Amino acid sequence: MTEKVSSAGGFTLPGEAGYEDLTLELAQRWGADAIRDSDGTVLSDKITQADYDIYSTLCLARADNTWAKVNTDKLQQNYLMSYPVVAESDTVTVDPLAGFFREQFKVNVNDDPKDWWQVFDRTTGQEVAKDRWSFDPGQGVVTVDGATKWHKYTVNFLAYRIWEAISMYNHITNDWGDREHQMPIDPIYPETQAFMLEFLRRWLDEHPRTKVIRFTSLFYNFAWFWGDSPDLRFTYVDWGSYESCVSPYALRLFAKAKGYELTSEDFVNNGAYCSTHNVPSRRLRDWMDFMNEFVVSFGRKCIDVVHTAGKQAYMFYDDHIVGTDPYGARFKDFGLDGLIKCVFNAFEVRLCAGVEGVKTKELRLHPYLFPTGLQGEPTFMEGGDPALDAWRFWANIRRAFLRTSVDRIGLGGYLHLVEPFPEFVDTIEQITDEFRTLRRFHEDDKPYTAPVKVAVLTAWGKLRSWVYVGHFVHGMELYEVTEAMAGMPVEVTFLSFDDILAGGIPDDVQVILNAGRLGSAWTGGEYWRNPKIVEALTGWVASGGSFVGVGEPSACVHSSQYFQLAHLLGVDRETGSTLGKPKRTYNKPDETHFVLADTTGALDFGKDVDNIYLVANDTQVLADRDGSPRVAIRQFGKGRSVYLSGFKFSPANTRLLHRTLCWAAGREADYRAWTCSNIHTDCAYFPKAKKLVVINNSDQPQQTRVFDAKGNAVDVTLKPYDISVMTE
Amino acid sequence: MTEKVSSAGGFTLPGEAGYEDLTLELAQRWGADAIRDSDGTVLSDKITQADYDIYSTLCLARADNTWAKVNTDKLQQNYLMSYPVVAESDTVTVDPLAGFFREQFKVNVNDDPKDWWQVFDRTTGQEVAKDRWSFDPGQGVVTVDGATKWHKYTVNFLAYRIWEAISMYNHITNDWGDREHQMPIDPIYPETQAFMLEFLRRWLDEHPRTKVIRFTSLFYNFAWFWGDSPDLRFTYVDWGSYESCVSPYALRLFAKAKGYELTSEDFVNNGAYCSTHNVPSRRLRDWMDFMNEFVVSFGRKCIDVVHTAGKQAYMFYDDHIVGTDPYGARFKDFGLDGLIKCVFNAFEVRLCAGVEGVKTKELRLHPYLFPTGLQGEPTFMEGGDPALDAWRFWANIRRAFLRTSVDRIGLGGYLHLVEPFPEFVDTIEQITDEFRTLRRFHEDDKPYTAPVKVAVLTAWGKLRSWVYVGHFVHGMELYEVTEAMAGMPVEVTFLSFDDILAGGIPDDVQVILNAGRLGSAWTGGEYWRNPKIVEALTGWVASGGSFVGVGEPSACVHSSQYFQLAHLLGVDRETGSTLGKPKRTYNKPDETHFVLADTTGALDFGKDVDNIYLVANDTQVLADRDGSPRVAIRQFGKGRSVYLSGFKFSPANTRLLHRTLCWAAGREADYRAWTCSNIHTDCAYFPKAKKLVVINNSDQPQQTRVFDAKGNAVDVTLKPYDISVMTE
Repeated sequence: MTEKVSSAGGFTLPGEAGYEDLTLELAQRWGADAIRDSDGTVLSDKITQADYDIYSTLCLARADNTWAKVNTDKLQQNYLMSYPVVAESDTVTVDPLAGFFREQFKVNVNDDPKDWWQVFDRTTGQEVAKDRWSFDPGQGVVTVDGATKWHKYTVNFLAYRIWEAISMYNHITNDWGDREHQMPIDPIYPETQAFMLEFLRRWLDEHPRTKVIRFTSLFYNFAWFWGDSPDLRFTYVDWGSYESCVSPYALRLFAKAKGYELTSEDFVNNGAYCSTHNVPSRRLRDWMDFMNEFVVSFGRKCIDVVHTAGKQAYMFYDDHIVGTDPYGARFKDFGLDGLIKCVFNAFEVRLCAGVEGVKTKELRLHPYLFPTGLQGEPTFMEGGDPALDAWRFWANIRRAFLRTSVDRIGLGGYLHLVEPFPEFVDTIEQITDEFRTLRRFHEDDKPYTAPVKVAVLTAWGKLRSWVYVGHFVHGMELYEVTEAMAGMPVEVTFLSFDDILAGGIPDDVQVILNAGRLGSAWTGGEYWRNPKIVEALTGWVASGGSFVGVGEPSACVHSSQYFQLAHLLGVDRETGSTLGKPKRTYNKPDETHFVLADTTGALDFGKDVDNIYLVANDTQVLADRDGSPRVAIRQFGKGRSVYLSGFKFSPANTRLLHRTLCWAAGREADYRAWTCSNIHTDCAYFPKAKKLVVINNSDQPQQTRVFDAKGNAVDVTLKPYDISVMTE
Repeated sequence: MTEKVSSAGGFTLPGEAGYEDLTLELAQRWGADAIRDSDGTVLSDKITQADYDIYSTLCLARADNTWAKVNTDKLQQNYLMSYPVVAESDTVTVDPLAGFFREQFKVNVNDDPKDWWQVFDRTTGQEVAKDRWSFDPGQGVVTVDGATKWHKYTVNFLAYRIWEAISMYNHITNDWGDREHQMPIDPIYPETQAFMLEFLRRWLDEHPRTKVIRFTSLFYNFAWFWGDSPDLRFTYVDWGSYESCVSPYALRLFAKAKGYELTSEDFVNNGAYCSTHNVPSRRLRDWMDFMNEFVVSFGRKCIDVVHTAGKQAYMFYDDHIVGTDPYGARFKDFGLDGLIKCVFNAFEVRLCAGVEGVKTKELRLHPYLFPTGLQGEPTFMEGGDPALDAWRFWANIRRAFLRTSVDRIGLGGYLHLVEPFPEFVDTIEQITDEFRTLRRFHEDDKPYTAPVKVAVLTAWGKLRSWVYVGHFVHGMELYEVTEAMAGMPVEVTFLSFDDILAGGIPDDVQVILNAGRLGSAWTGGEYWRNPKIVEALTGWVASGGSFVGVGEPSACVHSSQYFQLAHLLGVDRETGSTLGKPKRTYNKPDETHFVLADTTGALDFGKDVDNIYLVANDTQVLADRDGSPRVAIRQFGKGRSVYLSGFKFSPANTRLLHRTLCWAAGREADYRAWTCSNIHTDCAYFPKAKKLVVINNSDQPQQTRVFDAKGNAVDVTLKPYDISVMTE
């Protein structure tokens, strides 16, 4: 670290009653200006009365179990699809909850199953008529009469959630023993709303020292359905899907608002549920719109109560996030003061930093102060190395701080766990300093960015900017790509097919990127059947735009091509329907192409797509395996296209992608300015302050050469995970 | 070779004028009883007057170029789809033949394009109205008016074949220079039929020494569409598809016979053509039925002429094979005396041996006596080792001779090429002796076969027994599987979905096997949407049958499962629609399972299927990779199922499959009898003669232990490619 900028502020410390001296000592060491509690900890008077802002976590959905216990008909619900049962005669019996975690779910028998459930023959895919099945509340089973022998049957049913998922996870992870299970209550009912508002007012009265209410988060948790077997602990997880906010009451309101009724199958969707990975139907979008409107409207009432009490409202960008949609048009209407995101990776920094309509943005770093990590690995216990973990997590996310910043960072969990790890305490001190330095550089400046703007084209567009279905899904091409782009000196925006249909391709975009597999929301699925999309992209590339496709870009089982933009890419994929057609042979160029200039050794795109073949004789194959192109480029009219058979986030691939984007945009000449020769290092140049920041992302010492805009070079040596700040 | 049985007979020698002494010497050495000519060679009087049966090749479709040249409107035709052209304005021009080999094809301008062609917008998949396009015969191009800018357009058009494909291949391969191009004439026209019959009568008169007419083959060659670029020499190849017999005349007859009209798109099929790899439509099946009836009916007339002349008619089971369908119900109606199959692999021996309705079956071995092999590799020229090639080819096919036999073998090509290779002459002498020995053992005996009958379930069933779309398509699961089974001591039969729908699962079958990828004719595609199929198989397995699935068995994008038999297999495949659903974990058994007892080292299934996950908690995973099961077994009711993620023919995998079939059938106890301990060796026991035949399939010496039905063992040592015959 070359330069120390400021030593305090912008840091939220998790305090802990019983460890007051430690709390105050570390607040000093780490430059905290705020102290928070966590799920499982409380703050004592000695802490709250010290000279720090006090942040208090509050989750209205699980805040008062007493009310929940006497209003069990107002617990939150969701649809589940039972596991299939094969009929061995013309009668088949299904226990809807079999295979699910019975401590999480309870079958809703208050609302007539005949009104709200559906039974399906999943062999035919047809619904079973309502008069052919019955539910026995005593036995808790559905019996289908007149079943077809050897067909399999499932029941879509409503289940109350009788254990709130996040506290359940914390309870089980931290062995909270016989502590009472918290139950989530549903604010869709006026009675619940009245209770919540009253509870909130009382709570605010009782917490005069609290300055910031840290909502974790608002009302409905992301979908997290647990199984009853250690072999299948979680059966469904989706941070982005609107599954956990279903109830007959809400469905009736929906029907009134939108003029039509949803069915259980709209949510169950053949057992795939409403995953963010899948292209949303119009009905699902309507449901999302309806619930988003409700959550924003009632959330605003809660936040108004906070403001009326003279306090601020922050929201945690995880957990009970459903319905809030920080990238939605209504988000600003909450009137939130702050947004807090838990981050493992650089894309999550960009995700938080990119939200509009909220003043303060904070990141909760890892490791969380729990004995074990999310994968059960040791952290703050014997065998753990939390200092090294902290460096790794910081190096993961720091790349994004070269491109953007937020206002605050913080930690969470049990503070006392850090006591035996003094090296961890030192590490956090260094990290908080680095953060403040980088934050200051961004304050009234914008780091140098190549004149290349990339629009990531998905079915979701801006609403799922930075691909948020949860933390990094390794192997999913678009996560890998966005993680690479999160630290890259290019501009990144997110575009939906509906955006293109409504307004064409924005004028300031140079590259459109489409990445993922057939049928996913990320590539677009059935949208590619729409000729308007193909026309728009073809015409745009012909007149000088560019298209970068990763994996199965533009894939759709439609007409004579699988990649609907095969005529741009110059490649398509053999999926087995044209096995009788031999494939065009090709030669690779003798000289290393610009795109591959930083690629040494074998290309590793992870599990990339095979059986790619050429559909044009002017496609240039730069890399291949077993006769299947992996990197292929092509000119089309005045524009360019690049095909990559997959992508895996790595230092080498990040450079390959950076070069790909510059080449596609015809900006090869602009690539070099303010880049590093060594792929394990990154840099950012802040023109107003004339500051150059160079970081080492690796756990090894690195030498690197940085080029300025005039092509001058400076050599930099960096220790593991080091940062260097230089003035031009 | 322990025992020499007979030294002569059952061998067809390719003779060659100008090399009479060599011909007669080798006829003696190799024990020939027949001498044949080949495409490119003739026999002289000295040869035909020697004491050998004379076989003469005759291909009526290309026999007389003089007639063809004055009847160019009666050349054979097929539909082609032009390569797509992207419209850059509202007018687009397509040269239909661009990209095709213009020496093979000529656009048919005799029949009105407006009546017989179709133009498609392949972006939308819609046909362009006939009044929006026009064909200019002068320019040879189609112009589309009112095109949509940036859409791509193709033309389905009729093309005459002006160079017969097999002679074209031989011409180009052997540099026949300016020798006239032979043109194929179409027997669908009465005039052509009259000419062909007259030609045949005259030819028979002129060839009094000929005993056997060796038709190569009847009228229509397998689809073999050539490209104009060295990068794409062949654009479509399918030995089984009925593409080459299309003409307006035939289409009119079809409409009269079947009561409806076919369109060009029925043949073009989005550019995929009518590949045997794909599930046939009802319309395609009607066309096949219509053409098969015609070919059998006119073929019978030709064969009757041969018989009237006191000669015999054999047919070559390749080349102009379309319409003959040796596994079709009408094949016996030809009245053929013999069938000759060219063989590279064991499955082709079974393919030929399994045909009914013909007395004599002959195999044409490889190498073919040409300077270069089919891949352009040296054979009978400098750098070639034809003796080693002959041993390799023989070892490839010999496994099948442990299970079945044919009546004759033979060679083809230019005999003089063998002169510099005396080792080749010795090798063929040994091979012919081995053949005669094995043939004799089969004469009135049946080798021991485990009590396991496997039915391979495909869309084609018996019609494409042994999966004939041409020679071994490496990487295609079912080819790999059938090649393994071709030498295995189990019974193999072929079953179609229509067979099951009509008559259920035959009583004598123990295992049903389904292998391949989604949507192919081999797995069955849309047939799996039919609940009757799922019911039949589920019920059958529940009551003691068994199902073995390879790759994507029962795959169909339908309802809540991808493998429609996932409830039997206990596994399904994640194709991206349920990414939010975590997958069940599992433990592999500590002890080696029966199925894997011969598997040492890493499993190599080639490019097998990934992203397999468990859908039942009682599925046993025996092998996996990256968390994706590769071998999984499961009990369902009284029956069993096995999932293999892929298959590649190899000695180790052949044993794995053999064990899989025995385990699935519940016949583990019957596995050992008359098998070899060493995976590079195979054996067959002939109970009447009490002969045990043991073969070494490898190019290395092998020791092996053979177990008899009582569990007694005998050790055998074999030289490379050796055979050992023992008497019990």
